[in-house]
Amino acid sequence: MEAGDGPGPRAPLTPVVECVPNFSEGRRREVIDAILDAVRRSGPASVLDFSSDSDHNRSVLTLAGSPEAIHAACLALVAACIERIDLRAHTGAHPRMGAVDVLPLVPIRGLAMRDCVLLARDLGDAIARRHDLPVYLYENAALTPSRRNLAEIRKGGFEGFPEKIKDPRWKPDFGPDRVHPSAGCVAIGAREFLIAYNINLASADLDLAKSIARLIREKDGGLPCVKAMGVLLKDRNLAQVSINMTDFRRTPLHVVFDRVREEAARHSVGIAGSEIVGLVPAEALFQAARHSLMLEEFDPSRVLERRLEESEARERGDGR
Amino acid sequence: MEAGDGPGPRAPLTPVVECVPNFSEGRRREVIDAILDAVRRSGPASVLDFSSDSDHNRSVLTLAGSPEAIHAACLALVAACIERIDLRAHTGAHPRMGAVDVLPLVPIRGLAMRDCVLLARDLGDAIARRHDLPVYLYENAALTPSRRNLAEIRKGGFEGFPEKIKDPRWKPDFGPDRVHPSAGCVAIGAREFLIAYNINLASADLDLAKSIARLIREKDGGLPCVKAMGVLLKDRNLAQVSINMTDFRRTPLHVVFDRVREEAARHSVGIAGSEIVGLVPAEALFQAARHSLMLEEFDPSRVLERRLEESEARERGDGR
Repeated sequence: MEAGDGPGPRAPLTPVVECVPNFSEGRRREVIDAILDAVRRSGPASVLDFSSDSDHNRSVLTLAGSPEAIHAACLALVAACIERIDLRAHTGAHPRMGAVDVLPLVPIRGLAMRDCVLLARDLGDAIARRHDLPVYLYENAALTPSRRNLAEIRKGGFEGFPEKIKDPRWKPDFGPDRVHPSAGCVAIGAREFLIAYNINLASADLDLAKSIARLIREKDGGLPCVKAMGVLLKDRNLAQVSINMTDFRRTPLHVVFDRVREEAARHSVGIAGSEIVGLVPAEALFQAARHSLMLEEFDPSRVLERRLEESEARERGDGR
Repeated sequence: MEAGDGPGPRAPLTPVVECVPNFSEGRRREVIDAILDAVRRSGPASVLDFSSDSDHNRSVLTLAGSPEAIHAACLALVAACIERIDLRAHTGAHPRMGAVDVLPLVPIRGLAMRDCVLLARDLGDAIARRHDLPVYLYENAALTPSRRNLAEIRKGGFEGFPEKIKDPRWKPDFGPDRVHPSAGCVAIGAREFLIAYNINLASADLDLAKSIARLIREKDGGLPCVKAMGVLLKDRNLAQVSINMTDFRRTPLHVVFDRVREEAARHSVGIAGSEIVGLVPAEALFQAARHSLMLEEFDPSRVLERRLEESEARERGDGR
């Protein structure tokens, strides 16, 4: 009998945007620290995660906060990067076109994709004005369909952009029609949460991993919002299907997992395990639990922590 | 590349205790409202959930808050119940021995079972003194093994307690050696989160549901921390295994589900679906997702919302 109706109307939660700036420095520790410090001093945005890769010579930051806090944090990040990074002296394995290469904005709670689109455009305008930097809007923030795909925008990279930008089809959405001499240009987007998800086959058959990757990825006619490639984990001698899921609400984790498992089984290969790289929204795991437990009419508002969070927000008077 | 190390040391979250008071009024709306009002006016404890059952003539409240907030809320609840409920005039289907029948305390985050045990004893002492009410401590708060089981304590009910309490084996842990004339006595416990979980067979075979329930429940040699019975859902013409899971960390949801599914399959019966009644901790769903996706080394601190909550707590300066 310990169950029943909810305690009344839900309180709106404080709106939270995630922003995952990628910037072109992954080697000089003092430069990275100075950039992180600038972000921390910008206001209340939280640093949820951070990683640097020296081969790529690139760092990725995960920020979260209100739209205002993210706006302030991005301006501080861009200023710190432009001051300290000169792409003319930059080498690294990852494709890049700017000192701040990409600023994706992700609606997490209490706001819609539309709000992130508006935030991307506001930010783009502010950054272009302040630093005389060309800005491209991508994915949901794109002003034309041809600019939805980040890879298309970035093609040519920093070295190719002085030519590319002269092409009227690649006129920036904000800022001047020439690249910034040391900082290149920046892409600002609004997109869904990206889940990096890898499935390890119980086999070292790289060709099988590659053929499964082809089968499941959207661009080859597979599952919507799934990017995939086959790689070999040398230290474990396992073949891996390495996946980026660009909208877990359209194609959930368990759909990808089941599809890979079935296809591997057709070749008499089992699954060794899977892993989520980086952060994952609770909802993506709830989906998988709901599916595997065959839960009827499961509502995330019945999750204790969610209820508690709503209740605490109500008491703090958030969003009122 | 959008992944990596965490942002630094975790901040401790504000300690949260859940309390699930069961009180002996499920019919008179004005009495129930007055009791809820008294709880709300007691301080910052949150009402997460509430349900009344008029057949049982009983209500169940789910509260959450700091140990101090829960202490204040329980004192307010007990005072309001004693003032308004007279068990001499009470009828209802559910076994009960008190106006406030049971106060279970559950550690949710930022504190241990031991802290709930201490809170149970503090509360027991305070309630006994203030209202001259006999108090029994149960489950993890019990002072002797014979009092761990709530059903043993409650046996005889309000009507049988005036005799039972004279038996030295049933001397109360706090308060007088005689029942309160109108309010009986109260059991205060510390326990794990209880998940009410039902699995519906794709069959109306009640005997099969009963035999599966026997097979999985702890008291008949089944799974630890599992209580179960078979029931018939008349409106859907389905047999159901109705389960209480008293420690989902010892026996997770997916273990119960898989066991029931296998056993039903042995009788060529499928699963129609399952349902969680009331609230469920996120961790219980993460366990199921981890199992079904074969996630290696999954750490709940990689869940976005958890990371965000820790970060917000750090900024508010909680727990410092």
